[in-house]
Amino acid sequence: MSRSAAAGSIVPLPALSDRHIDPHSYPDGIAFLDGQYLPMSQAKISVLDWGFLHSDATYDTVHVWNGSFFRLDLHLDRFFGGLEKLRMTIPFDRDGVSEILHNCVALSGHRAAYVEMLCTRGASPTFSRDPRQAVNRFMAFAVPFGSVANAEQLRRGLHVAISDKVRIPPASIDPAIKNYHWLDLVRGLYDAYDRGAETALILDFNGNVAEGPGFNVFCVKDGRLSTPAIGVLPGITRRTVFDLCAEEGFAAAAADVSVAALKGADEVFITSTAGGIMPVTVIDGVPVADGKIGAITSRLMALYWQKHDDPAWASPVRYP
Amino acid sequence: MSRSAAAGSIVPLPALSDRHIDPHSYPDGIAFLDGQYLPMSQAKISVLDWGFLHSDATYDTVHVWNGSFFRLDLHLDRFFGGLEKLRMTIPFDRDGVSEILHNCVALSGHRAAYVEMLCTRGASPTFSRDPRQAVNRFMAFAVPFGSVANAEQLRRGLHVAISDKVRIPPASIDPAIKNYHWLDLVRGLYDAYDRGAETALILDFNGNVAEGPGFNVFCVKDGRLSTPAIGVLPGITRRTVFDLCAEEGFAAAAADVSVAALKGADEVFITSTAGGIMPVTVIDGVPVADGKIGAITSRLMALYWQKHDDPAWASPVRYP
Repeated sequence: MSRSAAAGSIVPLPALSDRHIDPHSYPDGIAFLDGQYLPMSQAKISVLDWGFLHSDATYDTVHVWNGSFFRLDLHLDRFFGGLEKLRMTIPFDRDGVSEILHNCVALSGHRAAYVEMLCTRGASPTFSRDPRQAVNRFMAFAVPFGSVANAEQLRRGLHVAISDKVRIPPASIDPAIKNYHWLDLVRGLYDAYDRGAETALILDFNGNVAEGPGFNVFCVKDGRLSTPAIGVLPGITRRTVFDLCAEEGFAAAAADVSVAALKGADEVFITSTAGGIMPVTVIDGVPVADGKIGAITSRLMALYWQKHDDPAWASPVRYP
Repeated sequence: MSRSAAAGSIVPLPALSDRHIDPHSYPDGIAFLDGQYLPMSQAKISVLDWGFLHSDATYDTVHVWNGSFFRLDLHLDRFFGGLEKLRMTIPFDRDGVSEILHNCVALSGHRAAYVEMLCTRGASPTFSRDPRQAVNRFMAFAVPFGSVANAEQLRRGLHVAISDKVRIPPASIDPAIKNYHWLDLVRGLYDAYDRGAETALILDFNGNVAEGPGFNVFCVKDGRLSTPAIGVLPGITRRTVFDLCAEEGFAAAAADVSVAALKGADEVFITSTAGGIMPVTVIDGVPVADGKIGAITSRLMALYWQKHDDPAWASPVRYP
């Protein structure tokens, strides 16, 4: 029913405001957009940006720990690789992006930060529907470091549930392009909450384990590590686990990981820039092995954090 | 290499600005957010909103033609259905949303408008990673009406290419939840541009035709219409074609449509709120039948626009 039919009498139209009054709160941090360094409350994109309307965007996140970036080069490699695959261009090279990230962190003052670089398709200045006519938009921001697992969960291991949601397959979206297509992961997370778990793993299109919201997964059986090979983000922390295994002489392989294999593992852990290497001790309500954090997981966690002081992988932020 | 190592001398940090100076242009229109009616330049979301970072959002678009909404009730049904599936809540019921959409259009003054209602997961006020703690955010906006096909393409038919990209399958994302997960469609569109076409169709996970960027597809063979049944958005314009076919006595069915069947059809057209029923006359460089717009397509196009004056489907906007 139309309003004119419903109302019976004329209702005045609401007032039009010039400028948005923002009632929301934002974390302490610094963003870069349109050449400007700004507080996080100003880090916004238009709802008409195809980065929002079509999730037509790529990004990468790197962390700062004890005042140093960790493996920044690998994150820059992946980000620029994604830009090329999506045919996006930005007016900065690797050194330029690196400088912007450094500036965001330095201006924020954070010694432990979660730092994101991103590029959206943008929009066409003539409002056409052709993405080739869009002006791509680069942004970056630094906010306080966050972790998938909180302090208690890191101590006793995460409780995860395996959802039957299927991770978006590579034939649809190349997972090497780090992207914001997360509704499968979000719905898997709600499945996990419904079953009393703290986070989720979802499946690949063959019914094997794929990954969770923002993390890869590893299992250990008889001293050998494995992690899903296909249809998953090639995570930098996942790669770091392979590098650490090579140093320690642990056997590690990317391969199919069935649900049964994961549940029958000696140890399980997840990996993410948001938290590093994090133990899993309960899957679908059942303890993994004896339900305690395993020896290999503990060893890798310790090594991972030690490496944050190694100049080969850590680059100091120049704070004022 | 770190900046401090690279620089050799101290480079001052860039200045921090209080407020973003926006260099971009926006279409003429009105948005609603946080209880405020605003020009489109103010319609922005935080980069930290999970609607952006996780594309965790649903939406619907309805159009206004000759000053009336077309089939608004069906769009509201789908939008509220998506909210429920994603477990989002907004502080407005159907009448409340309808009133906001009316106000956006009336304040814009547009007699032909593209009107979107959307809800993002929002963000947690405590900056937790738990989506259950997020405050969901409703927005709406009205901008000038746009069409997938321009005037010339409507006259002579669109030229499309079939990409081998696979539409995100329902096991990953329920297509009945209208969503912004479009990277598969965007990459298909670039495939089409590379082959000299104007827009794209992509495949379902069985290799049949699925849909294109923002539209469903129909073909006509021996007087019978068919449109892909699975893994596609249940479009309102697609449904309107079924309704018109019922009135006209045309046989129409949702069924698998192979690439060969599409290329061998007598007529092909696409359907979208952004443009209605739009003819396709060339697929992968080859004319469909005689390359002219077919009789059934033309009949349905005419009926579709006639229905915009029918009070059963059209609800007038109350302009000031």
